[in-house]
Order: sequence, then C-alpha cells, then structure tokens
Amino acid sequence: MALKFDERGLMPAIIQDADSGEVLTLFWMNDEAVRRTKESGQVWRYSRQHQQLMRKGDTSGNFLNVREVLKDCDEDALVVRVQATGPACHTGERTCFYRELGDDDLAGS
Amino acid sequence: MALKFDERGLMPAIIQDADSGEVLTLFWMNDEAVRRTKESGQVWRYSRQHQQLMRKGDTSGNFLNVREVLKDCDEDALVVRVQATGPACHTGERTCFYRELGDDDLAGS
Repeated sequence: MALKFDERGLMPAIIQDADSGEVLTLFWMNDEAVRRTKESGQVWRYSRQHQQLMRKGDTSGNFLNVREVLKDCDEDALVVRVQATGPACHTGERTCFYRELGDDDLAGS
Repeated sequence: MALKFDERGLMPAIIQDADSGEVLTLFWMNDEAVRRTKESGQVWRYSRQHQQLMRKGDTSGNFLNVREVLKDCDEDALVVRVQATGPACHTGERTCFYRELGDDDLAGS
C-alpha cells in the first residue's frame, strides 16, 4: 500500500517523545521526507515556509532520532516516535504544545 | 490571539489519551469544531468526507471526553488530551496508529 498524501503532496507527521509520550511537534512530510526519515533514522520534514526539505536539527543542533514510525488506519497520517537530543520547539521549549488554548483564541470570543 | 486555520479553514488536532499518552487519532477541526470541543467538553471534528461537523461518538458510541486543549507555538495545530470511552478508531482498534510503516508503504520502493 502506498501512503496517501494530500493535494499539496504532504502528510501530517506527529512527532512524539518515545519515552515520555509527550507530543513534541507536528511536521509536514512529502514522500521524500518520509523516505529520508525512515532511511536515515533522523526526522526530515518539508518546510512550507522555506519550500524545501530540511533535516530537523541542521539549524538548531537539536536532532530527532527515530525509534518507530507508525501509520494510521487511512494511511494519511504518521506518528514518529523519537528520542530528542534537545528542545523540539524553535522557542527553546521542549515541546511546541506548551500553552493551553484560551477563551480568547477563538475568533469572536 | 486567534488561531490560524489553513486555506480550507481547517487545523489538525492531535487526539491523545491523557492517561497513557498514546496518540489515538488525528482529526481536522474548523473554528466551530474547536469552539464546540472546548465548550461541550467532548471532541467535535470536521469530517472532510461528509463535509460536516460531527461529534466523535455520535455514530460509534465511543466519545472522547476532553481533559485539556493545548495549542502549538504557531497557533496552527492542537493537542486535545482526552479520556476515551471506547476505541478511537473506526476499525475497533484503540488507536488509529496501530501499524508500523513498512518499506512497501513508500511509492517506488
């Protein structure tokens, strides 16, 4: 079976700390990013902002070493279980999900 | 701050078991799905297949009770930590991510 990418050729990849279970970040991957992640054992993503493949850590030094890659029932989303060598978020936080959703986050609230 | 939805008006929401840390599924939410999820305490999603808002569990009886909603640094993705009343996957599996990615999942492999 082939993975199903969206109309942009991308698929969401949930990056999860393999030890703590914490969700670290959500990346977008194209076919080549999935292939490199699986083959190299480190997380690659497709940066929509830079419109290119990037290995997580090449800028920050904080790499994500792959323990396991899971696909969902529809084969259009991934969970990548990793061991992180440093903070996953560009803010320096361990995870990108460090804030609770507030009432004022919804338009018209 | 307002959440940032994509060009389709949607945002990925990672549904995570609050106790085990297991990633259960990935849903798409529009503004109204986020609002209902936050206000009702149960997970609502936007079904791209049915093109409508659906409360998870209305068909299966397996609801997802919300413990916490987190937003990411870019405010364009959510983690919803839940207590599930039954299997999250339509296959009957506890999680949609029950299979490892294989070598033959990649096109041209």
